[in-house]
Amino acid sequence: MILKVWAPAAKSVELVTAQQRHAMQSAPDGYWQIDAPDAELASGYRYSVDGGPPAPDPRSAWQPDGVHGASFVLAPFRDPGRFEVKDLQHAVIYELHVGTFTPAGTYTAAREKLQHLAQLGVTHVELMPLASFPGKRGWGYDGVDLFAPFAHYGTPQELVGFIDDCHARGIAVILDVVYNHFGPDGNYLGLFAPYLTDRYKTGWGAAVNYDGAGSDGVRSFVIDNARMWLRDYGFDGLRLDAVHAIFSFDAVHLLEELALAVRQLSHTTGRRLLLIAESDLNDPRLIRSVTRGGYGLDAQWVDDFHHAIHRFFTQESDGYYADFKGMADIATALRDGYVYQGQYSTHRGRRHGRRPVGILPQQFIVSTQNHDQIGNRAQGERLSMMLQPWQLKAVAALLLLSPFVPMLFQGEEWGALTPFLYFTDHENAELGQTVAAGRAQEFSSFGWKGEVPNPQSAETFGRSRLNWNELQETAHADLFEWHRRLIALRGAKPSAVSKAAVKFNEAEQWLRFAHQGVLVVLNFAAQTRRVPLPAGRWELVLRSDEAQARSSDDMPPNSTFVFRAL
Amino acid sequence: MILKVWAPAAKSVELVTAQQRHAMQSAPDGYWQIDAPDAELASGYRYSVDGGPPAPDPRSAWQPDGVHGASFVLAPFRDPGRFEVKDLQHAVIYELHVGTFTPAGTYTAAREKLQHLAQLGVTHVELMPLASFPGKRGWGYDGVDLFAPFAHYGTPQELVGFIDDCHARGIAVILDVVYNHFGPDGNYLGLFAPYLTDRYKTGWGAAVNYDGAGSDGVRSFVIDNARMWLRDYGFDGLRLDAVHAIFSFDAVHLLEELALAVRQLSHTTGRRLLLIAESDLNDPRLIRSVTRGGYGLDAQWVDDFHHAIHRFFTQESDGYYADFKGMADIATALRDGYVYQGQYSTHRGRRHGRRPVGILPQQFIVSTQNHDQIGNRAQGERLSMMLQPWQLKAVAALLLLSPFVPMLFQGEEWGALTPFLYFTDHENAELGQTVAAGRAQEFSSFGWKGEVPNPQSAETFGRSRLNWNELQETAHADLFEWHRRLIALRGAKPSAVSKAAVKFNEAEQWLRFAHQGVLVVLNFAAQTRRVPLPAGRWELVLRSDEAQARSSDDMPPNSTFVFRAL
Repeated sequence: MILKVWAPAAKSVELVTAQQRHAMQSAPDGYWQIDAPDAELASGYRYSVDGGPPAPDPRSAWQPDGVHGASFVLAPFRDPGRFEVKDLQHAVIYELHVGTFTPAGTYTAAREKLQHLAQLGVTHVELMPLASFPGKRGWGYDGVDLFAPFAHYGTPQELVGFIDDCHARGIAVILDVVYNHFGPDGNYLGLFAPYLTDRYKTGWGAAVNYDGAGSDGVRSFVIDNARMWLRDYGFDGLRLDAVHAIFSFDAVHLLEELALAVRQLSHTTGRRLLLIAESDLNDPRLIRSVTRGGYGLDAQWVDDFHHAIHRFFTQESDGYYADFKGMADIATALRDGYVYQGQYSTHRGRRHGRRPVGILPQQFIVSTQNHDQIGNRAQGERLSMMLQPWQLKAVAALLLLSPFVPMLFQGEEWGALTPFLYFTDHENAELGQTVAAGRAQEFSSFGWKGEVPNPQSAETFGRSRLNWNELQETAHADLFEWHRRLIALRGAKPSAVSKAAVKFNEAEQWLRFAHQGVLVVLNFAAQTRRVPLPAGRWELVLRSDEAQARSSDDMPPNSTFVFRAL
Repeated sequence: MILKVWAPAAKSVELVTAQQRHAMQSAPDGYWQIDAPDAELASGYRYSVDGGPPAPDPRSAWQPDGVHGASFVLAPFRDPGRFEVKDLQHAVIYELHVGTFTPAGTYTAAREKLQHLAQLGVTHVELMPLASFPGKRGWGYDGVDLFAPFAHYGTPQELVGFIDDCHARGIAVILDVVYNHFGPDGNYLGLFAPYLTDRYKTGWGAAVNYDGAGSDGVRSFVIDNARMWLRDYGFDGLRLDAVHAIFSFDAVHLLEELALAVRQLSHTTGRRLLLIAESDLNDPRLIRSVTRGGYGLDAQWVDDFHHAIHRFFTQESDGYYADFKGMADIATALRDGYVYQGQYSTHRGRRHGRRPVGILPQQFIVSTQNHDQIGNRAQGERLSMMLQPWQLKAVAALLLLSPFVPMLFQGEEWGALTPFLYFTDHENAELGQTVAAGRAQEFSSFGWKGEVPNPQSAETFGRSRLNWNELQETAHADLFEWHRRLIALRGAKPSAVSKAAVKFNEAEQWLRFAHQGVLVVLNFAAQTRRVPLPAGRWELVLRSDEAQARSSDDMPPNSTFVFRAL
């Protein structure tokens, strides 16, 4: 089998197997290659650059023994076939962490829960990162072997089985990929080529070299990686982690080049393939077409939507929540996605964002909970651990009937009471201690007085597992049913693209919004309220309470009504 | 008079005059202000932040005693009036360093040479930076008092007089401004506010904080600076130094905000105001309209044009010249401006640039010599010190009859034989030695074995002054006349926008290009050549030699012919 590795500055590269060392031949563009004996590869291989310590292949397909172990090649993949991905306009995304989604924490165990997701009405599952990272557990954002799925979740074939099963149930699968930095532990990339740069900084380590000398090879590395997940594994899209930390200050931004490559793959395969950016920039350039000066991604996350709702319901005002207040910001979020469109942000100490002109609602992915918003709290609390049941229902209606693409975080649909904590398993003990101490220090600097669970502890991981038994309880089952019915209503909306019409009265404590024939009315007051409806005839189709009111003339305290236009 | 200063983190700010200290009042957005007694201000003032050492005003209008001296306010400026700036399509820019343009090195002395420039046909003079920098001489790229013109060139009133005189002769005036870094010496900005950041690096010092906390104030600082030069002094445009080192990773790039502010000033005043970027990115985004995702600047420098021509004529191949070769690159430069449109650059070690789609020729400023290309050589040699007279004429024809906007460097029009060396006058002796040693070291690392003149030495500056007596000599006067006639031919081109039609034969050593009815034919061979003309009837209107040929049927060795379409 032909093996290739990029090591442009190397004077020699050897393939190292359990049996022997083989000198590799220099190939164009700084690559080295060899026709390796298949029998030897079967027990794993490494590369030695200039006689240095043997290291895993940067493009290793499989690291069964972890990020410090030998690399393995895989048998050819099946053709993923043509799967009809639903348009984002009709999508409901479900963010899923394989390790905590089920007690076993594997792809195979996750397959058994697909019936639950299908019943809920989920159209897209989004897997948190799979690129191999150190240890036996973690969120996955410190991946180092970008081409090798994390071995503790199952084999590559089991991952393929999970994806095929999702497809069989009409569910698309998106993968979270991290192209803004590589993890600190198990990172051998520097031995091979100029993957990293010190020209820019990220909060998580050295930035990736996308615009300096040698960056063509680095770009090929991540673009080939994106292609592999989509083409070989059959993923239907990628969620690009924190693109504001992808520094690509040249005439063609990495994201534009990536979007072009994925568009070409889409043409070749006839499959719809999605690119979704997590972005902190409130910059529509990411999702504008290239002809309009954009990068041509399909959609982006909008955190402002989350922050406006979180601030209103929890009344928390620290950190970025300081920038949000009251119903006016929820109304702006429902209308425009971005709350910050160029105005001054106290949290950032500068003006932030720009108007999302010419953007379609289905280009904005919104959530009211996700791995970061839950897991970056000291205690990893979900909204279900902070809010009343009526508030959870109101939040769900805001999320699931907004004009944007809603994303749920695993367990949100039944108000799971298990936390989602930050957990790691760094094999380097010193690094593990540094991470744990750094996290405690960080929260203490914010004035947090309580306990901060140790990320390295197995218990912290264990507590973060979903408890599916909760679904047997009436309150949880009721909340699941609420989510299911909202999603069904969302699915029945016609396809026309429009903005939400929002009206609210802060003094009277109500807010309503209408979008494509569906009207949501929220009474936040502790008493019965008459909330005026928009002109037209409206049929009440869903209500959060058990009382008998038939219209908004007397909405019970703390209630949410959903109407459909007649 | 009301004085204001931005010091957002200060607990107190005092106005310090020769007479006394006055506490200033806190004003919105982190500013401090005072109604200062005019009589005291007449002898200069400084500010003390939190009781610290008194420092010059970051927005000082005048630093007659240098960057470490007291700040002064100025009397109101005259209205610059409405001056009809020529369209860039018909422009010829002339880059001018006030300190070396004349023996006296002042604005007043420069006025006496305006007749020479008018006679040459110059439409725009571009002054190298005037923002106050340390010492008595320098290129000006280490400015620290952005609002105070360098005192050794003359008073602000004398600068105004120079600009008014240019306008009276129909010449517009552009100023080179440096917004990518501030100089190291005399830099008191850090005492006042977060002007700088360590998030990014430039080759010349800390990067400017355009996207972090407090960046709104920094943006106001530079945008107000741009407004001042244009509105108060009456400059017709700005040349923005090295915009590839302006790091502004947010939804609205500083350059877009600056362009908007200048467009608004243009509307208000009814004057045409230009923004020209020096850029190393080959990225048309800079000069695209905002509706097409651009920053909306008017034009940008194109270094590839220079490099392709320089490489061909000098055969130098070190540094970035390694990326260029032969007539093919000159032909691409003549057609598209950018030679690098996405292909691999050996010098950069990566792909570079993108296609300049939708860009007009008048958006590209080209030169075959400029302060950097001359002055960044160890010996500061001009092409006139490296090439034959026939080559200088060929270069001038390529430059002045190209479809783009040509820029000459002072003295280029007569083949001046004075070098333009790198010179400084850092008052900080240690910094001066570091600069001198650094420069010697830099050239030595490139393998340069010769002498590197000491930048700090007054002689280095003195040798860089133009010697106007050269114009009395026939060879120089002849070259001046050649430039004058090419410019006149350029001015006679019709206004239609089109690309150049270029054809060449490397083996036969000829190249020709036609643009809007003007045809340039270059015979690089040492023998007589028959160069085929394009279809049509062509009248020979200018020739570089004294021989009698009437057509290209027998072009003499090393000759340049210019034809006009009949």
